[in-house]
Amino acid sequence: MLSKNEIKFIQSLKQKKNRLEQGLFIAEGPKIVEEILNSNFIVERIFGTADFFNKTTAIPAGIKQQIVTEVDLEKISCLTTPQQVVAIVEMDQTNIETFQNKDWCLALDGIQDPGNLGTIIRTADWFGIKNIVCSNDTADIYNPKVIQSTMGSFTRVNVYYTNLNEWMATQQVPVYGAVLDGKNIFNLEMKDCGIILIGNEGRGIRKENMRYIKIPVTIPRLGNTESLNAAVATGIILSHLIN
Amino acid sequence: MLSKNEIKFIQSLKQKKNRLEQGLFIAEGPKIVEEILNSNFIVERIFGTADFFNKTTAIPAGIKQQIVTEVDLEKISCLTTPQQVVAIVEMDQTNIETFQNKDWCLALDGIQDPGNLGTIIRTADWFGIKNIVCSNDTADIYNPKVIQSTMGSFTRVNVYYTNLNEWMATQQVPVYGAVLDGKNIFNLEMKDCGIILIGNEGRGIRKENMRYIKIPVTIPRLGNTESLNAAVATGIILSHLIN
Repeated sequence: MLSKNEIKFIQSLKQKKNRLEQGLFIAEGPKIVEEILNSNFIVERIFGTADFFNKTTAIPAGIKQQIVTEVDLEKISCLTTPQQVVAIVEMDQTNIETFQNKDWCLALDGIQDPGNLGTIIRTADWFGIKNIVCSNDTADIYNPKVIQSTMGSFTRVNVYYTNLNEWMATQQVPVYGAVLDGKNIFNLEMKDCGIILIGNEGRGIRKENMRYIKIPVTIPRLGNTESLNAAVATGIILSHLIN
Repeated sequence: MLSKNEIKFIQSLKQKKNRLEQGLFIAEGPKIVEEILNSNFIVERIFGTADFFNKTTAIPAGIKQQIVTEVDLEKISCLTTPQQVVAIVEMDQTNIETFQNKDWCLALDGIQDPGNLGTIIRTADWFGIKNIVCSNDTADIYNPKVIQSTMGSFTRVNVYYTNLNEWMATQQVPVYGAVLDGKNIFNLEMKDCGIILIGNEGRGIRKENMRYIKIPVTIPRLGNTESLNAAVATGIILSHLIN
């Protein structure tokens, strides 16, 4: 059984300030926990049902494991329907200083919705993109909802947070910006590298970041909705630029 | 002030069985409510903050309007952050009997996640798709999370629920199926019409529906994640088939 203090501690990791203070985050479900165990991330502790530990043989020695009841799992889980296992994982200290973009990368200007950010990371991973640079007001990658919706892709994609405007000023490759009145994405000539800049769900790309866009691009609209979901738009743009 | 019974009644519409019994559903936020007021949907009642009614002049006479406090709005809202207005709307009786597909349409085989379904409807609307046929186990369009994530597109796209297998047996246009080992979507020849079949988030397309697929299609993977989000995959496929 988990003690009240343990439950309180794990629950506290739902808040960004506590995650930063502890250097830890939560990940849930057999698939994601398995991906983390196969990555460079360091797992601090695993709370799983007896059923989970019976089925999972891939846990390296040295990682603290604790069998919990379904009732306790529900107390520490961030999901509506808990999925057998909650892992406490060390945050990765990704430093923008070491990153020079020479390939394709994404730049996110204030993506607010955790599900959107997670789905963008997963989509980037599908298209082989290794780096995503986020403005400081983009949702936190270690938010449990982001981690869950990446489906494990956060272990393969570097996600940096920085002053996006200052960072873009230092880059050499062309910037593609997703806007409403750019060039038709279906007719673009392919290039080898670039930064694909995606704006906030409501306001789009900030004015001060617009001036770095060399190739404004648009997904032609045939129907009537005002906009596409940010993750869907990112997927469509990637599928036309990188293939 | 809202009475306890009123609050209880509105909250009851979060459940499918109560929506079916009452023939009513909930929609929230100025943008979506405005789209509904401009559509064929019949609004039964609007609960809004004073601020909402001050700013909104487009409400036709005859619709019951009630000013509510932020505190009351929070009690009836399905959102973490309520957005000024909750509308009670009459469900539309869409009947598959009247629908013969001669254009492009989507067929959804068990999409479970309400956010995914809503985003798929919004994406279909962007690409001018007017009809979506869902298996009976697909998420309910009138689930508040679906309605919210359509961003109003549900007012422009017909969403049918039926025995998908039986329905596909009666169709004349080619069926494109999103699978893991199909033809490269980037190299397909364009056609004028078809059914685009999208499978469940976990198990994909059901075996019994697979046999109707004439053109299996795949989005080539360059990276390492096992799968794409269903709404992102739908957007990418639509952007390559319909443009």
